[in-house]
Amino acid sequence: MKKTHAETNGAGAIGVFDSGVGGLTVFREIARALPREPLLYLGDSARVPYGTKSPATIVRYSLEAARHLMDRGVKMMVVACNTATAAALPQLQALLPIPVIGVVEPGARAAVRQTSGVVGVIATEGTVRSKAYTHAIRLLDANIEVIESAAPLFVPLAEEGWANTHVAREVAEIYLEPLIDAGIDTLVLGCTHYPILRGTIEQVVGGAVHIVDSAETTAETVKAALGKSTGTSNPARRFLVTDAEERFRRIAGEFLEQEIEHLELVSLG
Amino acid sequence: MKKTHAETNGAGAIGVFDSGVGGLTVFREIARALPREPLLYLGDSARVPYGTKSPATIVRYSLEAARHLMDRGVKMMVVACNTATAAALPQLQALLPIPVIGVVEPGARAAVRQTSGVVGVIATEGTVRSKAYTHAIRLLDANIEVIESAAPLFVPLAEEGWANTHVAREVAEIYLEPLIDAGIDTLVLGCTHYPILRGTIEQVVGGAVHIVDSAETTAETVKAALGKSTGTSNPARRFLVTDAEERFRRIAGEFLEQEIEHLELVSLG
Repeated sequence: MKKTHAETNGAGAIGVFDSGVGGLTVFREIARALPREPLLYLGDSARVPYGTKSPATIVRYSLEAARHLMDRGVKMMVVACNTATAAALPQLQALLPIPVIGVVEPGARAAVRQTSGVVGVIATEGTVRSKAYTHAIRLLDANIEVIESAAPLFVPLAEEGWANTHVAREVAEIYLEPLIDAGIDTLVLGCTHYPILRGTIEQVVGGAVHIVDSAETTAETVKAALGKSTGTSNPARRFLVTDAEERFRRIAGEFLEQEIEHLELVSLG
Repeated sequence: MKKTHAETNGAGAIGVFDSGVGGLTVFREIARALPREPLLYLGDSARVPYGTKSPATIVRYSLEAARHLMDRGVKMMVVACNTATAAALPQLQALLPIPVIGVVEPGARAAVRQTSGVVGVIATEGTVRSKAYTHAIRLLDANIEVIESAAPLFVPLAEEGWANTHVAREVAEIYLEPLIDAGIDTLVLGCTHYPILRGTIEQVVGGAVHIVDSAETTAETVKAALGKSTGTSNPARRFLVTDAEERFRRIAGEFLEQEIEHLELVSLG
């Protein structure tokens, strides 16, 4: 198939894939850690959210996204969505000829470094059902107790800009009190949307609980996997969405605190 | 294409289409109004929600759903989703050789019958942006004032089973107080999910405001369009979803207060 100019625009970039805007928390940390690397973000906004969908559907959507990023020539793929990582990372790693990095293992590693024994994980229904964090943490240290709990309303609260409202605070109390009562000393934000509510979550759990946001540790993992960065100054930062580009432009612009210059609507599947 | 046995199972049924579970509020009223008619429900749970997506994407998804229902041999199609009605009804009516009924016009008609002058409409971002209710109401009576307001968090609150919680009450107050202050005497529930929160909404707006749930008036419209019902006693009630059938089975079973016997996973698009 002949490639158009637009389709070649990701050549040599690190591809960052998410179901919508949540992966921008990871994108931001990668951009900070690797200021000379071109980045290509793909948000599947036509099918967001993934968290309530079945593993088979999430695998299908993730493979379609991977195919699109491969066609654009990315040299590495970051699955910046916990639900997609939990459901599809092994398949993606087996099928793609480039390094594929998920967000669960970096988050698990950071949790193991910080905990003194009891880790809480909040995530989507899909991620919790997969027990991906429990498996990843206990593979590193079988003595750690892991309590996973779904917090599905955090995603629409973040998407709708309600992160710092009294409603978000009340929802956070309902989701987090059972974890606090269970004695967690570390809390993993196991969905890339949740760092948007970090302030509210910190208020509820208090200063004694370590918060793990896998965005930072994922960026460290990407940097380590990349080895020597061969980028340029002022590298391209491009964004692809499958729907509603103006909505994405607004949310991403506010979140990244910069104007979104290169934004393109694409079709997957 | 040769049809499988399963694919012919909707022959002669009324097809009811929604993005997920919200359209079950309409399905239930049609089942009550037409107890002898076979019904075939299609919930596009792999791509739910539609309310935050663009008109072009909603049209595409709706046409794919219509094609699937047509292949199954339905004799009439009900678009039991306000967002899909607002974005895609004219195209569906133009393209399909069977009657296609949406939920906006029946809701608008009911509002006009009840109001003494100021109608509030709560709906998804997509429906509000389309101004479909304002157009439909003012076509019937140009003297009525219409105030539309998006209430996007009502969908996840309904989907997550939080309809009757203190959080839902607080969200409802935030969404509805501007409408109450504007002096509405009638409130249209302009999303088929919202009747699930009807109790909470009624508590907030008080007894003086008429609530319009377009499910009942849509069922009346379907009955009128059908003419003489030619059904049988104990007709088939079948359900199709594009993802997560066990989640649908649980929610639909609770909502319809009956066991969901015929449920099938299908693929659109």
